[in-house]
Amino acid sequence: MTPKPEDNCVWGKAAIISQEGDPTKVVKVYDVNLGELPQDKILVRSISSPVNPSDLSLIRGSYLAKKNNRIFKVKNPETGEEEEVCGFVGGNEGVGIVEKIGPKAGSAANGSVSVGDWVVKVKGSDGLGSWMSYTIVDSDSILVIRNKDKITPEHVITLKVNATTAYRMLKDIVPLSQGDVVIQNGANSGAGQFLIQFARMWGFKTINVIRDRPDFNEVADSLFELGADAVVKDTELGDPKVISETLEKVGAPGGAKMAINCVGGDVSMLMVKYLSDRGTFVTYGAMTTEPISVPAPIFIFRNINFVGFWLAVWYSENPYSKWAEVWEEILQMFREGKLVPQKMVPVPWYCNGSPLETSKIQQLVTDSMTAKSKVYFKFD
Amino acid sequence: MTPKPEDNCVWGKAAIISQEGDPTKVVKVYDVNLGELPQDKILVRSISSPVNPSDLSLIRGSYLAKKNNRIFKVKNPETGEEEEVCGFVGGNEGVGIVEKIGPKAGSAANGSVSVGDWVVKVKGSDGLGSWMSYTIVDSDSILVIRNKDKITPEHVITLKVNATTAYRMLKDIVPLSQGDVVIQNGANSGAGQFLIQFARMWGFKTINVIRDRPDFNEVADSLFELGADAVVKDTELGDPKVISETLEKVGAPGGAKMAINCVGGDVSMLMVKYLSDRGTFVTYGAMTTEPISVPAPIFIFRNINFVGFWLAVWYSENPYSKWAEVWEEILQMFREGKLVPQKMVPVPWYCNGSPLETSKIQQLVTDSMTAKSKVYFKFD
Repeated sequence: MTPKPEDNCVWGKAAIISQEGDPTKVVKVYDVNLGELPQDKILVRSISSPVNPSDLSLIRGSYLAKKNNRIFKVKNPETGEEEEVCGFVGGNEGVGIVEKIGPKAGSAANGSVSVGDWVVKVKGSDGLGSWMSYTIVDSDSILVIRNKDKITPEHVITLKVNATTAYRMLKDIVPLSQGDVVIQNGANSGAGQFLIQFARMWGFKTINVIRDRPDFNEVADSLFELGADAVVKDTELGDPKVISETLEKVGAPGGAKMAINCVGGDVSMLMVKYLSDRGTFVTYGAMTTEPISVPAPIFIFRNINFVGFWLAVWYSENPYSKWAEVWEEILQMFREGKLVPQKMVPVPWYCNGSPLETSKIQQLVTDSMTAKSKVYFKFD
Repeated sequence: MTPKPEDNCVWGKAAIISQEGDPTKVVKVYDVNLGELPQDKILVRSISSPVNPSDLSLIRGSYLAKKNNRIFKVKNPETGEEEEVCGFVGGNEGVGIVEKIGPKAGSAANGSVSVGDWVVKVKGSDGLGSWMSYTIVDSDSILVIRNKDKITPEHVITLKVNATTAYRMLKDIVPLSQGDVVIQNGANSGAGQFLIQFARMWGFKTINVIRDRPDFNEVADSLFELGADAVVKDTELGDPKVISETLEKVGAPGGAKMAINCVGGDVSMLMVKYLSDRGTFVTYGAMTTEPISVPAPIFIFRNINFVGFWLAVWYSENPYSKWAEVWEEILQMFREGKLVPQKMVPVPWYCNGSPLETSKIQQLVTDSMTAKSKVYFKFD
């Protein structure tokens, strides 16, 4: 019941960013004419795509990696006239279904590709993000999800950023052994929820810091359900009694081995008090945009290492076969019920099979940019 | 002509710290009665000992490692009466000469020991620092300098802290190859001067940051003489033109591999601009006591690692044989004229073979705590 491209031309709706700024203002939804499908390319109909903090950073201009701009042929949302817009489509992960394969198109990045395959875009210097209902791609820029058994789109759409970030942070930064303790802030973020679950599976303990909020107990309980060993309010983080009791509770009176920070500022530095000497403090995000201010004795006498983590580096250094391997490992955890997806709220672009008005989607997209819960766009 | 201990009791003059605080106020010089030489110990007459920034930090109470206090029998400097003082003797490196060996004393930490040997104290939990004219030690707490050929006390007294700090920082923190660039601040410090010389010998380039001061050119010239490849004023450190010209000059347009900081604060963070991505920023001191404030993108996108360095860790992890090996390697560089000692001004405790009045030494010691030049105490 999904509408088909008209006149051999592929028309989709896309959330396009023409200039950096406040995401609720600069993300515009357009009907986009992508032209005819070239013989050597593939038409992918989007299924779902999440809104990640890093997407918002990129739109705000505080993310290092810029997307290439390109010219889009769009319908002016008010006049209906065709016009050109220069920008990029937002979104960095999602899943789509192969709708049509050009007669001269090649193989996917991980082998053969067929109509009906679920695919994830892995190469993305073309300005085409995942927040669009249709996209035309080079065949080698997609990875095929080979085994859809027991897998839903909600399992797939967070593989590339959130799940793999958590996976690699636990694997790559410091060697962790059974019983080792990791403390993280922003613990109810997408990556945070996965990190708790991977840690539980691999035998590591987690201390999870979340904001002191009216629904604290509810959020804490949801993290305990995922396998959290301790949950601490950010307002109580520096309390010596809380520190000693929490470390006692997780069986590490000597301190945690790694602290994982996506918040920044003084409140994140309090996590250093939970680290053992020679521990590692990792920053992979900066929700507050405040710097990390480290007194010299923390470096000299406690020998705490402060490092960064950026998943893009791992992706750039590993072949697609390795990406596929990690993703399949994570999907298998979903299949076996060892892993649950993060909590997400869908934002529909269609209703009963018909696309919503552009102005309606614009409203939904704009709202999603400040949504309190994790949001994903649902295209069918 | 050195005065001998009276009545079989060892009397020396010592700079004792009874409470933490301003070094010009809390370092007191006393005539100290060390008692008779026990049969299983060794009497060492001090030759020279420097005043290091870490000594002053320790006295101020901002150094992590505390010295053990002990009771000293001293003469009250005003009344001449014997009284007891609880505290520790300042100073953490120096050289002495073995004056007497108890009949049941054992071997030095690196083998046999004889009267007349030059020795460096390596074990020091007894509250006896190096700022005293005589000391009584366990034999295994001293290392004998085995080959004094072409070696002066000024070569030996900075081995333990300054020279070895510079040596180990270049060897242990990141692997450096020929042509790699290191930037350091506090470059005219003792460790800084050694670092320039080791780097030159081992094929690394150095960019050296010093304060913008009236005698800048003179200090810069002295660093160039040691082998500095570039010298930069702290006030010009962040100037993009200076950065690109300096990196060009040292043949590293892509940036330095390591930044070495003993200053702290915002001015030290400017060194990050000289680092290549994935570079390492090391803090081993904090002259300003200001923290290092790091914006998240420096961690995430530039992947700069911030680490600490504390020589005490290396010493605690390596046997005395390894200490002796490194020191002998450095002494051999002195012998061969490849290395020159740092510039130092002597503060005499004796004049024409007679010890100065305690009050006079007190004045000299107090002045030395704020001396602009590197100072060392000369005991004979």
